[in-house]
Amino acid sequence: MSTEVSKEHIAESYRKIQSDICSAIESADGTGLFKSDHWNRDEGGGGHTRILEGGSVLEKAGVNFSEVHGPFSDVMKQSMQTKADAFFATGVSIVMHPNNPHIPIIHMNIRYFEMNDGTYWFGGGIDLTPHYVQREQASYFHKELKDVCDKYDSAYYSRFKEWADDYFFIPHRNETRGVGGIFYDHLSEDEEHSKSSIFNFSEDLGKLFPKIYTHLINENRGREYSEEEKEWQMVRRGRYVEFNLVYDRGTKFGLQSNGRTESILMSLPRQAMWFYNLEPKENSPEAETIALLKKGVDWLS
Amino acid sequence: MSTEVSKEHIAESYRKIQSDICSAIESADGTGLFKSDHWNRDEGGGGHTRILEGGSVLEKAGVNFSEVHGPFSDVMKQSMQTKADAFFATGVSIVMHPNNPHIPIIHMNIRYFEMNDGTYWFGGGIDLTPHYVQREQASYFHKELKDVCDKYDSAYYSRFKEWADDYFFIPHRNETRGVGGIFYDHLSEDEEHSKSSIFNFSEDLGKLFPKIYTHLINENRGREYSEEEKEWQMVRRGRYVEFNLVYDRGTKFGLQSNGRTESILMSLPRQAMWFYNLEPKENSPEAETIALLKKGVDWLS
Repeated sequence: MSTEVSKEHIAESYRKIQSDICSAIESADGTGLFKSDHWNRDEGGGGHTRILEGGSVLEKAGVNFSEVHGPFSDVMKQSMQTKADAFFATGVSIVMHPNNPHIPIIHMNIRYFEMNDGTYWFGGGIDLTPHYVQREQASYFHKELKDVCDKYDSAYYSRFKEWADDYFFIPHRNETRGVGGIFYDHLSEDEEHSKSSIFNFSEDLGKLFPKIYTHLINENRGREYSEEEKEWQMVRRGRYVEFNLVYDRGTKFGLQSNGRTESILMSLPRQAMWFYNLEPKENSPEAETIALLKKGVDWLS
Repeated sequence: MSTEVSKEHIAESYRKIQSDICSAIESADGTGLFKSDHWNRDEGGGGHTRILEGGSVLEKAGVNFSEVHGPFSDVMKQSMQTKADAFFATGVSIVMHPNNPHIPIIHMNIRYFEMNDGTYWFGGGIDLTPHYVQREQASYFHKELKDVCDKYDSAYYSRFKEWADDYFFIPHRNETRGVGGIFYDHLSEDEEHSKSSIFNFSEDLGKLFPKIYTHLINENRGREYSEEEKEWQMVRRGRYVEFNLVYDRGTKFGLQSNGRTESILMSLPRQAMWFYNLEPKENSPEAETIALLKKGVDWLS
C-alpha cells in the first residue's frame, strides 16, 4: 500500500487534477484559455501556475499546482514544533472569480505535507462564495460535498462543514465568507482511515470540483444583471480580499515564507470595491444574502 | 507645563486639527463635503469619523478622530508588557484617494497614548503614495516635512525618514508603498525634548497636512489622464490594500481589538485592481515609478 501513496504518487495525481480541472473549466468558459507559468523555488521544488483572465464566464481564475521541498527554516521548525529538518509539500489551489454576479466565487485546495521524521498529513477544503446566496444552489453544493464525504466516513461531512464555518469567517465583519463548504487539516491514518483512503478522499474532491462549478456556471450564466448587481459583486469581492489578506493561513504563510507572490495572490479578484458603511436596503436581495452569511446554517434541509 | 499637555488638552487639539483639515480639504476639493459619524466604544470613549466620497478631486477621503480609554484587556496588557491596568489613547488618522491618477494618495496619523502608571508616548507619520512618482513633488513633500522636523530636532528628519522607509514597505512586493515621508513612535520626554515640544511637533504636522496636500492637488488637478493611467492607479491602489491589510499595525490592532471596522477600513480605496503578473513596459512612466519605490532614496538632493 505504501508505495501507492508515496509523495511522488500524490504529487503526480494532484498535477493531473490541476490539468483536468483546467480543461473542464476552459470547456465551461467557452473562450477563455489558461496561461501557464512554471516556476522554481530556490530552496527546492517549484510549481505550475495556470491563470485564465478575461474569459466569457470567468474574469479571473487561478489553478495553482506546487511541489516544494527542502530544509526547514528555523522559523518553520519552531512554528511546527518539530525536530525534523526537511519537508515535502504538494497541493492544488484554486480560486475563480466570474464576470456574472449571479455565478458564485469558488475556492478549492487539496494539499499533502510530510516531514523527514515520517510524519505527514493531508489538508484541504472547498468553499463557495455567492455574491447573491441562492438556497437551492447552496444545497446542491453541500449535498455534493456530503456525498463524497460519506464515501469515506459518515462523520466527515458534519465535522468538516463546521470546520469550514469556523475557518471561512471574517471576525471584523461578523460574516462568513460565503455559504461555507468543507475544510479539513492534519488528517493522517488512524484505526479507521488508511493513508490511501485519505488520499483518495482528496482526489475525489479534486474530481468533484469541475462537476460542481460547471453546474453552477450553467445554472447562472444566462441570468441578466444590472449595474447595481455588478457593484454589489465588487463589494463582496472586497470582503474576499479582506479574508484572504487578513486571515487566510495559506496566504499569510506563503507571503511570510517568501513564496511566489503572484501565485499566492492569484486569489485576489481583478477588481474590488469598498464604500464607507454600505448598508443594503431592508428586504433587498443584498440584505437577504448578508442575513445568510453566518455559521451553523443547515444547507441540506 | 504639565497642565498644558494633559490628555484632555491633547485630545482637544487633535479634534480641532481634524476639523481644520476637513475644512481645508473641502475647499481644495470644491464640491465634496465630509459626512460625520460619531461612535461610542463600549469599554470607554469613542470617535468621530468623517468621510468624503465622490468629490471633484477626491474619490474617497477619511479623517478619523478618536479618544478612547478604559481598562486593558489581558491580551493588551500582555502585548504591552505592563502592570498598568488602564489606558487613554487619542489620535487623528487620514487617508485620501483622489480621482486623478496624477494626484498622489496621502496618509497622516498623529496619536498620543498614556497608561495609568504615568507612562505615555506620541507616535505618528505622514507618507505619500504617488501612482506616478514625480521627483520634484516628492522633493517638495520631503522638504516641507524636514522643515517641521528641524524646528524641533535637527536629527528628527533623517531618523524619521528612515523609519518611514522601513515601515511603509511591502516585503512580498519588495517595494516601498510610495515615496515615504516620516514615521515616529514611542516618543516621550528626555533630556533634549519636553513633553510639550513633542506634542507641538505632532500639532505642527497636523497643521502642515492641508498645506501640503492642497499644494499637491493644485499642482496636478488639471492634468489629463488616459484609461491606461486610470487602470495603473487601480493597480497601485491594490498594493495600498495589500500593505494596509497585511502589514499596517494600526489596521491589524484595530481589527483584532474589536475596533470600529468601518472607521479602520476607511483607508481602503473605493476601487482597486489586481492583474496576474503585470509587468510595466520598459522605460514607461509606470516602470520608472516602480524603480523609485525603494528604501533609501534621498528625495532632497
